[in-house]
Amino acid sequence: MFLERFMFSKNKIKYIRSLELKKNRKEDGVFVAEGHKLVGDLLGHFHCRMLVATADWLASNKDAVADEIIEASYEELSRASLLKTPQDVLAVFNQPQSDYTLEDIKHSLCIALDDVQDPGNLGTIIRIADWFGIEHIFCSQGTVDVYNPKTVQATMGALARVKMHYCSLPSLIASLEDFPVYGTFLDGKDMYEETLSASGLIVMGNEGNGISKEIAGLVNKRLYIPNYPKGQETSESLNVAVATAVICAEFRRRLQ
Amino acid sequence: MFLERFMFSKNKIKYIRSLELKKNRKEDGVFVAEGHKLVGDLLGHFHCRMLVATADWLASNKDAVADEIIEASYEELSRASLLKTPQDVLAVFNQPQSDYTLEDIKHSLCIALDDVQDPGNLGTIIRIADWFGIEHIFCSQGTVDVYNPKTVQATMGALARVKMHYCSLPSLIASLEDFPVYGTFLDGKDMYEETLSASGLIVMGNEGNGISKEIAGLVNKRLYIPNYPKGQETSESLNVAVATAVICAEFRRRLQ
Repeated sequence: MFLERFMFSKNKIKYIRSLELKKNRKEDGVFVAEGHKLVGDLLGHFHCRMLVATADWLASNKDAVADEIIEASYEELSRASLLKTPQDVLAVFNQPQSDYTLEDIKHSLCIALDDVQDPGNLGTIIRIADWFGIEHIFCSQGTVDVYNPKTVQATMGALARVKMHYCSLPSLIASLEDFPVYGTFLDGKDMYEETLSASGLIVMGNEGNGISKEIAGLVNKRLYIPNYPKGQETSESLNVAVATAVICAEFRRRLQ
Repeated sequence: MFLERFMFSKNKIKYIRSLELKKNRKEDGVFVAEGHKLVGDLLGHFHCRMLVATADWLASNKDAVADEIIEASYEELSRASLLKTPQDVLAVFNQPQSDYTLEDIKHSLCIALDDVQDPGNLGTIIRIADWFGIEHIFCSQGTVDVYNPKTVQATMGALARVKMHYCSLPSLIASLEDFPVYGTFLDGKDMYEETLSASGLIVMGNEGNGISKEIAGLVNKRLYIPNYPKGQETSESLNVAVATAVICAEFRRRLQ
């Protein structure tokens, strides 16, 4: 197949750098991914508008498809990169449209994020969801943007499989009617002693403040990840991504 | 008690900034912590050489003890800070001497880190160890420095309780004689189907390469954290801190 090759102009570098900001990504409906593994994982799943790579990368990835394919030196890629450690390939993808039906959700285990702030935590949670076969993550409007470059990188490609939805969590919970809603609280009940259902919504809260009051009122199963020795008082907590992993692992263990 | 107050000179700012480098921290046997919660957690545990804080912080923490206590403006603190987000208190602590006896270890669950590289991952693992009552972490000499400012911050104070030892992991394992050594591998056995002992060494590997060949040969229980749906092939993996948490939680659950 003949591929028209484009120039990597200053304007294009400027355009890519502008995508560090959420408002610019939103306006164009795009996001940036960098690195061989990540771009490779996403290429089959999302429409690629612009692919910028070194000659070496292009030579060994001849079947990569994009609206524009641009050969660039590593130095040029470094100027465009949104990361501390530039890579030999960078791609601009269309943001996917993620749909769901309430019927799907009612038969699944899903995660809801109530104002998670750290881009790395969000990316790690998406990767955890992928590992534990959780297909949908619902994010409050105050949750960090999934297309933040740090989030995209931290997903390690899991973004290709996990569907992300930004919405009002109270409205979602209301529309799910009598659906089990789980949340973790320092005064919750030992999760190992509680019944866990095969489908349900697991709510994880903000790094500093936990689950907001409004959402806490809608949780009908308050869980606690026991520390050890059990019952020893602690003022500490687990990182939100770490807690998500321990909870998801336990839900899945029960289904074995 | 009368406390002599010192000036926050340019030299002191320069000194603190020099502690971003491991060789300077090592030479002086010190490390830097920043922020109210972290400094507060560490003050009772480690000898503080220098405490720099705003007038407000000092007024509400009158019993803080340090060799030198320095009042500084937030702007001055910002110039000394090793973090992106400067805080209203910064402290230089002595690096603790962590001892252990083989007898202690033989009756404990411990973690060994084989060249973990990311400072944030190391800090998160220390926090996880604290939550799950794991008192000792052994690090290969190639593991990132525990006194890296990003690691110290990520521990959220758990550094006050978890003891860190840098050593040769093969020598440690040899000296423990017939001690259970666990490791996670993509071709390991489902950890939910394996016997887990109350004491043992859990080895976690490098972010990119996993457990090194040499150490892998010394692991006598190869575990796997099952993904879901179980048995579905995956080329993916979990972040090392996330995997540590899921494994530690399972070891502790069995002891309930």
